[in-house]
Parts: sequence; C-alpha cells; structure tokens
Amino acid sequence: MSTLELVEAAAERLKGHARETPILSSPFLDELAGRRVLVKPECLQHTGSFKYRGAWSAISALDESVRQRGVIAYSSGNHAQGVAYAATQHGIASVVVMPADAPQLKIENTRALGAEVVLYDRADESREEIGETLATERGLTLIRPYDEPQVIAGQGTVGLELARQTHDLGVSEADVLICCGGGGLTAGISLALEGHAPGLRPRPCEPEGFDDVKRSLLTGQIQNNNAASGNICDAILTPQPGKITFPILKRLCGPGLAVTEQEALHAMALSFLRLKIVLEPGGAVSLASALFRKDEIEGDTVIVVASGGNTDPQVFAQALEFLT
Amino acid sequence: MSTLELVEAAAERLKGHARETPILSSPFLDELAGRRVLVKPECLQHTGSFKYRGAWSAISALDESVRQRGVIAYSSGNHAQGVAYAATQHGIASVVVMPADAPQLKIENTRALGAEVVLYDRADESREEIGETLATERGLTLIRPYDEPQVIAGQGTVGLELARQTHDLGVSEADVLICCGGGGLTAGISLALEGHAPGLRPRPCEPEGFDDVKRSLLTGQIQNNNAASGNICDAILTPQPGKITFPILKRLCGPGLAVTEQEALHAMALSFLRLKIVLEPGGAVSLASALFRKDEIEGDTVIVVASGGNTDPQVFAQALEFLT
Repeated sequence: MSTLELVEAAAERLKGHARETPILSSPFLDELAGRRVLVKPECLQHTGSFKYRGAWSAISALDESVRQRGVIAYSSGNHAQGVAYAATQHGIASVVVMPADAPQLKIENTRALGAEVVLYDRADESREEIGETLATERGLTLIRPYDEPQVIAGQGTVGLELARQTHDLGVSEADVLICCGGGGLTAGISLALEGHAPGLRPRPCEPEGFDDVKRSLLTGQIQNNNAASGNICDAILTPQPGKITFPILKRLCGPGLAVTEQEALHAMALSFLRLKIVLEPGGAVSLASALFRKDEIEGDTVIVVASGGNTDPQVFAQALEFLT
Repeated sequence: MSTLELVEAAAERLKGHARETPILSSPFLDELAGRRVLVKPECLQHTGSFKYRGAWSAISALDESVRQRGVIAYSSGNHAQGVAYAATQHGIASVVVMPADAPQLKIENTRALGAEVVLYDRADESREEIGETLATERGLTLIRPYDEPQVIAGQGTVGLELARQTHDLGVSEADVLICCGGGGLTAGISLALEGHAPGLRPRPCEPEGFDDVKRSLLTGQIQNNNAASGNICDAILTPQPGKITFPILKRLCGPGLAVTEQEALHAMALSFLRLKIVLEPGGAVSLASALFRKDEIEGDTVIVVASGGNTDPQVFAQALEFLT
C-alpha cells in the first residue's frame, strides 16, 4: 500500500543518487500568472524527468537476489530511460520493450543507458505478451510505470523536497500543479504533502481531450480517454488513472486542470525565455495551467512541477515560434 | 582589494537572495568528453546569468545613504539585467545606459526589471560621458561589470558553492572551466577555490579571436583583442582583462582555452539535449572547451561553469540544427 512511510523510505534510498532539483522563478512569469509562480524543474533530474526517482526507488527496494536477475519495463519514453539508467547504476540488466516505430533517438538513448531494447510491432504484437514471456524465461521483475507502490514512493520524493523548499520560502498555502498521466507523480507528491505541507493542495494537469483524471475526479469514478494517442503531450497520455493511484488522487487532490497543445507549447517557450530550462510538452502542462488557467487557481502563490524535458529539437523549435 | 574574505562576506549578504545552482551531469556528455563532466548551470540564476550575484553583492555593500541615491551601469546585456533586478529588490532606483541599437527584448527586459534605460547612439555619443553626467547630477553610484572588488566577490560565491558541492561528490582535483570576458567571474571563483578547494584549478575559456585573457596569461602581460565585436559570444567580448582581475587570474589560473563559434553553438545543442538547460553562446564556451579541447584538459573529472542563458530564440534555433 502507498503511504507516507514508503515515500520517506524511498527518499533515504535515493539520497546521493537522485538530484534535489531547485526552485526557479521569474518576475516575468509572476506578472503573466497574476501571482507568484514557483517552478520545480524535474527536467533537470537524471535522464531528463522525474521518472528516474521511481525507477531507482523500485529497483533499490527489490531483494538482492531478485534484483540480480534484472528488470523489465514497457515504455517508449521517460520511464524507459529512468529504468535503464537506474538498473545500470545498480549493476543489473534491464530489458525495455519499445514499439519499433518509436523515435530513433529514444531507442538509441535507452540502449546507451544500458538497456537491452526489444522492439515490437504495435499492429501485430502485444508488448505485454512479449514482456511476460521474457520476464518468465529470465526471471526479470516488471517495473510498472505508475501503478506500483515503490514507484509512487520514489516520485513522492519530489513532494518531500517541495515541502522543505516552500517552508524555507515562507509558503504554507498554495495550489501545486502537477503534470499527470497515470498519476504516479501526483499520487506520490500528494502523500508527501499530506504529511509535511498540508496547506499545499495537489492538482493534476492534463492535455484537453486526454483529461481522464480531471473527469474521474469530477465524477468520483475512473473515466477513460476516447483516444490513445494524437496529442503532442506524449509523455502523459494514458488511457485512465491507475487502480492504485486514483484512490489517492480522489482523497487528496483538488480539481484537475486541462490545457491545449498550443498552450503547452507556449509554456515551453516561456520557460526557455524566463527560466532557461527545456521542457517537453507533457512536462509543461503544469506551467501552462498556471499561466493560462489562472481563474481556476487559488491563492497568491502557485507551485508548478515541471516534470520532464525530453523533447525533440523539431518540437522545441516549434515552441520557440511563440517568441518571434 | 579582492580577497577570500570579501567573497565570504558577499556570500552572507547573498544568502536567501541568490539561488544556489545545482550540479548537473549526463553520462552522454561524460562519454563525449572522455571524462566525468560536472556542470554548474548559472543560467538558472536570477536574470539568467551569474551577473545577479555581483550586482547584489555590490549594491548590498553600499552604505545605506549612498545606496538610497541609486545606481548606474553601462551594459547591453547580462550585467544590466542583474543590476536592474538587484536594485529593484533593494527598493532603489537604477539607470542603465544602453546602445540604441541593442536588441529590443534586452531593452524591454531591463526596463521591466525596474531600471530607467537611457539610450545612446554608439556612433556619436560616449556612454561614459552620459553616465558620468547622470551619476554626478543624481548622485548615482557606478556598478562596474567586473573591475570592482564587490562585484568580483559576488561572482566568487559560485566558487564557494562549487567547493562545497564537489567536496560532497568526492572530487578534490579537477580543472574548472569558466567562461571569461573581463574576468570578474573567473577571478572571484579563483579566490574562492584557492581558499576552499586548492586542488581545483580555474581555467578561463573564450571565443577564438577574442582570447585576450588566454594570451595575457601566456605572456604575463595584459593583451588586447583586435576587434571589439563580430562574434556570436557577445556576453564575453571585452577588449582586455581588467586591471583588478588580471593579477588574480595570473596568480591563480591554469592556461586559457579558446573555442570556435560553431563549437559554442554545438555545446548549446548538447546542453539542450543532455542537460535540459538553455545556454547562450558566451555561456557555453566552457562546455565547448570540455567537449572539443579534451587534449588540453587534465584529470578524470572536469568542472564546467555554464555562465548564462540569455539567448535569442533565433540563435537557439541555429544551435538546434546540430541535432538534425
């Protein structure tokens, strides 16, 4: 079960491995948002997203004998890189099952970080079947991207840092905007804040049209997205909130927020200009919510968890067009 | 006189104001450089460069009655923004004398940060004369960009942080590559490292053709650049090392390094891809030196001070072309 204690134990295991990311701000963003904006840039985490935290947490929590047999993950993106790198640093093997049509750069990066990449054909093959066969044959442990207590606990260490950092800045009440796919990051942060900064209210942020979490929170029941793809925020397109994460979100989160693709790109441009950080579209929906949904936010300070920066140069160049 | 004691006193005054920037790294950069690369991203500092540290240090060191009359600076770039913002935060007036043909965005930013911008015509007018007249009329204090002990002391706080951070990482011997214009940052860091991390050797990095510091160190005498402009690394084009900074550099620095414009742009692209930070060309010559001058560097670890990120989107888009 996911608890604050699991998050705190994960923080101990992550010490000296995950980076403590700073808090950034800019008077220009404050002006645009109509309130003070504090940004936690998880794009600066190892492998370019918060996913490294959950991967390290899950791998380091395994029994030594189990861990030595290696791990497996399905992902074409940030979770893949986090698992590959954390596994390599533990000196164990990792297998990542990726679609054959994934961007070449992501495949190369995942390989370079030490994983064996197994490609499958999205049309004809099931990644779950391939994964299960490999896991059984080789005794690999599956590291799920979000519906896994030790992964949630690792992501929750972002919340522990936030609680300490906002306390130092004298902020005790604020909405905390979090980019949300399956809900691992949001659930972990929510548990940490409940324990250490109860005046901070977590709120999931999503792309419009893929706002399953927002709608699930509104109705109190897990809702699905109509489509599985077709939005630039690829990192956070999941069909529905997780079975483990959703009850946590339902208990602890404020209402969800949703932004357009154009707003996510615009937020990327502004984070380039004002914060000097690189965000990917799915990592920028939280900042976009702060800037473009200000009437839906409460308080004189808003906290933004900018979750990742693994974007293609072409997409980034597209975002920069907002500045010209 | 510039001393370690001044740097330490500046650090006290900067506490709670300047950001402590983290240390970033990437296994991909390590691979390219042939050694471990630790990057200190001062682009994440307030106003997008280390210049805020020196500005805050100098303004906070003034006697209250002097400070209340306001400050003045000449600069079209990072120093202007640092002085404007630090002055506004101190609740005092600032005047920045800028060329009328400076990029509109930099003029607007400096104004938005609270400065009165006085424009002059590069061809017909002297910024020194305009500045002196204003300073005398209004009793403003001039904040020099580098040849000023309290500015050097403020920039030196980067070195104090580096000494502590590298100690925590177990690094006691390494070359420290520093983007160098007039030498304020390099001199300040050198003083801090001499006192707190004597195994770390500061080395100034410049653009080829504007390597006055490198040549001055080689000859032991202050050398000039042939041209005053005409290089993409605008933030670090100064005619010669400072009168106060050079003796410090001469006493404490290893040999200088120089890179091409293309190498600086390429380093910007790699910091986008691997570190998720935004560097400007003049802020990337240190990383470019680590990646493209590896035979001139000693040791199994190299430390890179990436000094700023105030680049135009057009220049950044040009850098991204290295990735396609």
